[in-house]
Amino acid sequence: MRNIKLTIAYDGTHYCGWQIQTSSKPHPDGHRPVIGQKLRTIQEEVESALQKIFKKKIRVEGSGRTDAGAHAVAQVAHFKLDGPFDLEKLAKAVNAHLPQDIFILSAQEAARAFHARFSARRKTYRYLIINCPERPLFVRQLSAWVRHPLDLVGMRSAAKYLVGRHDFRSFQASDRIERRSVTTIYKIGIKKTRQKSAIPFVNGLNLVVVDIEARGFLRNMVRNIVGTLIEAGRGRMAPQDVKNILKKKDRRSAGPCVPAAGLYLMNVCYGRS
Amino acid sequence: MRNIKLTIAYDGTHYCGWQIQTSSKPHPDGHRPVIGQKLRTIQEEVESALQKIFKKKIRVEGSGRTDAGAHAVAQVAHFKLDGPFDLEKLAKAVNAHLPQDIFILSAQEAARAFHARFSARRKTYRYLIINCPERPLFVRQLSAWVRHPLDLVGMRSAAKYLVGRHDFRSFQASDRIERRSVTTIYKIGIKKTRQKSAIPFVNGLNLVVVDIEARGFLRNMVRNIVGTLIEAGRGRMAPQDVKNILKKKDRRSAGPCVPAAGLYLMNVCYGRS
Repeated sequence: MRNIKLTIAYDGTHYCGWQIQTSSKPHPDGHRPVIGQKLRTIQEEVESALQKIFKKKIRVEGSGRTDAGAHAVAQVAHFKLDGPFDLEKLAKAVNAHLPQDIFILSAQEAARAFHARFSARRKTYRYLIINCPERPLFVRQLSAWVRHPLDLVGMRSAAKYLVGRHDFRSFQASDRIERRSVTTIYKIGIKKTRQKSAIPFVNGLNLVVVDIEARGFLRNMVRNIVGTLIEAGRGRMAPQDVKNILKKKDRRSAGPCVPAAGLYLMNVCYGRS
Repeated sequence: MRNIKLTIAYDGTHYCGWQIQTSSKPHPDGHRPVIGQKLRTIQEEVESALQKIFKKKIRVEGSGRTDAGAHAVAQVAHFKLDGPFDLEKLAKAVNAHLPQDIFILSAQEAARAFHARFSARRKTYRYLIINCPERPLFVRQLSAWVRHPLDLVGMRSAAKYLVGRHDFRSFQASDRIERRSVTTIYKIGIKKTRQKSAIPFVNGLNLVVVDIEARGFLRNMVRNIVGTLIEAGRGRMAPQDVKNILKKKDRRSAGPCVPAAGLYLMNVCYGRS
């Protein structure tokens, strides 16, 4: 069997995340599907495109689920398949069968043991905050919006307490069954930029960009962390409060969960690093 | 009567342009409305928001119609109304009643004779082309896409023939009744940039940006001109062919009409200039 590694970008606005699921949760578009009805997912779309090409069901395994409405600049997935198909042409062929909001960036031959989820060593997520008094118009589904000016000194001080190996239960989705909640954050980068661009809908935007690199992420972890950092950036919480939040292991102690629209899976790192 | 000038930004993706109309043309979203049915327009949304505030029908006059699916960074409109209402609060109040893809940037007191359409001296449109081999993912409804590399020397040479006072009938929508087709283009600027940005969906994009400033624009004029400049930029037409296209006064002689998604009304200029 050949093992194929796909690198995939998607605009997750109209999807219930990467992973195929049956659920009664409302679709981000607003309509509430019938309980038990299958929701539209990226994985499903990629599998369906592969099925059209190879005329059989092919299971694609992603590096992890992404949230409903969240995006990916470079999600990684793999699938196994026999045959003499041309890898060069595969990405193009799959793209021809995919909707406009999903795009295969590359298809590569991987080692037999490569597994998109189990071989992943670290991941980076970026969270995009438009920090302007007026609500953003064109990028409203591609970012979060905070109207109050954010103080980066406070945000960075708060973030420092999160770096390292911790039990992140306070930042884990509260509606979930108990699961492993210890992981390691390697790095949190926070920067502020003002965009000057020929792109009309980007020009003049004030951004706060939060990058989090970790061994692994719990469900909703980035969005709960960013919600907490925003509290610190608005001065509604002291940076050192983060120490207590971690200690409490209680979701209610941390800040709010910010919208998935601002969340991007940037990179999945494999190998010895 | 007070005369109020509104400056309005909108993401036109889900609208049939600025102007209220009844028509049988399909909505850009894809569904075909019943013949004679009113289509969703920006003007209608603004008038309806004003009606909610002032409890009466208020007619808003724009600087001109914009195409279905086209956007505005700064459309201008005016309306007349008596009363002691607070201008400072008006924009905020109207925005509270507007959908997420329309935004009033400012509301100002204008001279009694000010008319958004008749007082306009010049307008600038920007057309945004993503010039990459891969189709753009996140900005697919906010730009046009040309996969073939565009040669700016050819585009600029072609554009030179269009500057000045001409009969632009060859660049006017072909499905329209006869109307005035002489206008003056003051300037066409064409630039190429590669975006380096913290915004994931913008980073790495190669852009070709076309700015056209004119006394006035005919229906579909910018999109037909850009379609023709793209032909020159791809080497499928010699720049000097534009001279003949102008002379022929026949829409069929010019290049194709490019999608409205890439079109932005940037600025409407009033006053003595």
